[in-house]
Amino acid sequence: MGALGYIDGRIVDLKELVVAMEDRGYQFGDGVYEYAKVYNGKCFSLKPHIDRLYRSLRELKIPAVFTYPEMEEIHERLIAESGIENGGIYLQITRGWAPRAHAFPDTVVPCLTMTIRPSAFDASQWETGVGVLAVPDERWLRCDIKSLNLLGNVLGKQKAKEAHCYEAIMIRDNMVTEGTSSNFVIVKDEVLWTYPVCNLILKGVTRTRVLEEIVPDLGLSVLEKAFTVEFAKGADEAFLTGTTTEIMPVVSISGKPVADGKVGPITRKIQKGYKDLIAKECGLA
Amino acid sequence: MGALGYIDGRIVDLKELVVAMEDRGYQFGDGVYEYAKVYNGKCFSLKPHIDRLYRSLRELKIPAVFTYPEMEEIHERLIAESGIENGGIYLQITRGWAPRAHAFPDTVVPCLTMTIRPSAFDASQWETGVGVLAVPDERWLRCDIKSLNLLGNVLGKQKAKEAHCYEAIMIRDNMVTEGTSSNFVIVKDEVLWTYPVCNLILKGVTRTRVLEEIVPDLGLSVLEKAFTVEFAKGADEAFLTGTTTEIMPVVSISGKPVADGKVGPITRKIQKGYKDLIAKECGLA
Repeated sequence: MGALGYIDGRIVDLKELVVAMEDRGYQFGDGVYEYAKVYNGKCFSLKPHIDRLYRSLRELKIPAVFTYPEMEEIHERLIAESGIENGGIYLQITRGWAPRAHAFPDTVVPCLTMTIRPSAFDASQWETGVGVLAVPDERWLRCDIKSLNLLGNVLGKQKAKEAHCYEAIMIRDNMVTEGTSSNFVIVKDEVLWTYPVCNLILKGVTRTRVLEEIVPDLGLSVLEKAFTVEFAKGADEAFLTGTTTEIMPVVSISGKPVADGKVGPITRKIQKGYKDLIAKECGLA
Repeated sequence: MGALGYIDGRIVDLKELVVAMEDRGYQFGDGVYEYAKVYNGKCFSLKPHIDRLYRSLRELKIPAVFTYPEMEEIHERLIAESGIENGGIYLQITRGWAPRAHAFPDTVVPCLTMTIRPSAFDASQWETGVGVLAVPDERWLRCDIKSLNLLGNVLGKQKAKEAHCYEAIMIRDNMVTEGTSSNFVIVKDEVLWTYPVCNLILKGVTRTRVLEEIVPDLGLSVLEKAFTVEFAKGADEAFLTGTTTEIMPVVSISGKPVADGKVGPITRKIQKGYKDLIAKECGLA
C-alpha cells in the first residue's frame, strides 16, 4: 500500500530499475506525459487528459498503443493496489528503446511508465493565495505538446522556489504566457484574460474546464489575449489553474501585490465551482 | 566484446534495465551529455568535451561528481573492455532520482551512464558531400547547454531524414543557427562565416578546433556573424562540423546547389587539417 509504479503490466517499487539507458526518453526526453488527480478513490478529468495524451503522441509521431478503456483500467488498478484515496497518477510514454541516433528509429515499442503517490499539498495556500515570480520564458516553440523536455519549466520553477514563490509566470516577447506547470488568468472589470491557445502554451485541462464549464455560469466573459506583466499587476484579481494547483489565487507578482493583495471574490467563486465539479465527478458529499 | 554500457562502476549490457522511472533524466530530460570519438583505440578531443560537460553541469546546478582523471579512466576502461578501436563513447549525467516535482530536489545523487558503440558511418559522404534541409529552429533559448532536452533537434533531424538529407540546418529569426547535431559554416571570398557563440547555439568542440587550430594555418579569416539561408545558398562553399560529422561538405541546401554543387577546395583543406589533428592525437600513421 502507498506510492508505487507501473510498467509492462507490472506493479513495481518506485526505486526498482526498470528502464534501459538507451530508452529515448532518457537520452532525448523523447516522450510525453499526463498527470491526473485522484479524489475519493476516483480519477478526475481522466478523459480530457488521455485525449490530450493522444494529441501529444500524434504530434511527435509516437504510436498510441493503449486504448482509452485500457488506460482507464490501469489507472483504476493503480488506485486499487496502492490503496490511495487522494493522490495523483503520473503517466509517461516514451518512443522506447533504440541505439542512440536523433532521427526516429525504424521500429519502436513505446514505453509506458506510471506512478501513483498520495497528495502532499499545502491546502492552506488555496485560502491565503500565493506569490508568483515573473521569469523569461526560455522554452521551445512547441509548448502545446506535453513533452518530457521540461528543463525550461524546471529552471523557472526553481527560480520561483528560491524567491519563496509558489510558481513562476513566464514572459515571452513581453507577454505572460503561463506558469511552469499551470496556466495563468487575470480578472479585470469582470473579464477573464488568459493567453490564447497556440504553440506557446499548454492547453490546460483545468483551464479548459474553468473557461467552458464554470465561467459561463458566473456571467463573466473570457478574453483569450496576451497581456504584459505590468497589466497583470494592475488586474483586479489573478489566479493559476492546474491539475495539482487547482484554482490558486495569486496575490503578488514579483513581490508587488495584485490589487489590494487579497484573494478576490471572482477567484473564490471559481474555486467553489471547481470544488463542485470534483464533487460531482468523484462522488463526494 | 562490442557495444556495451556503464553505470555505477559496472559494465552492463545495453538492454539491461538500470534506471528507475523517477530518474529526473527520464521525467524532465534533466541532465547533460557529451559524445567523444575513439580512433585507433584512443579518445579524441576528450579534454574539451569534459570541460564542456562541467560547464553544462554548472549551468544546470548539477554537482560534478567525477574528476577529469576519473572520466578519462572510465573512457579508457570502456575502450579496453569493449575491444572497440574505432567508435564513439556517449556519456550523460542526470540530476538523479527524486519523487517527481519540477524544482530541484534538496539532495541529489547525479546518475552517470555511458555507452560505447563501434563506428557505423558512411564514409563516402565525406567525399561526395551531402544535402541539408532548412527547417525552423524551434528549440529553447539555452542551446549553449548540451542538455537532454533534444526534441527540437530530433524533430529537425527527422525532417531532414524524410527529405533524404544528411542534416537539417535551423533557422531562427531568419538566420541559420546550426545543424541539429553539428555546427554550420560557409565560405565566401575566403572568409568563413558561422553563427556567433551565444545562448542560441552549442559551441561545438569540432567547430572550435577548426576555427582555432586549422583555419589560421590556411590563411583564411573567420567571421562569427549570423547569415540568412539565402546568403548561404550563394556561398562559395559550405560544410558542417561535429564529432561524428567531422568536416562534412554541404553541396545543397533544401534542394538548391551551393555554388556549383561540388565540394570546394577550402573544405578539402579543412578536412585534411582535421585528419591531421586526429592522426597526431590518436597516434595514427
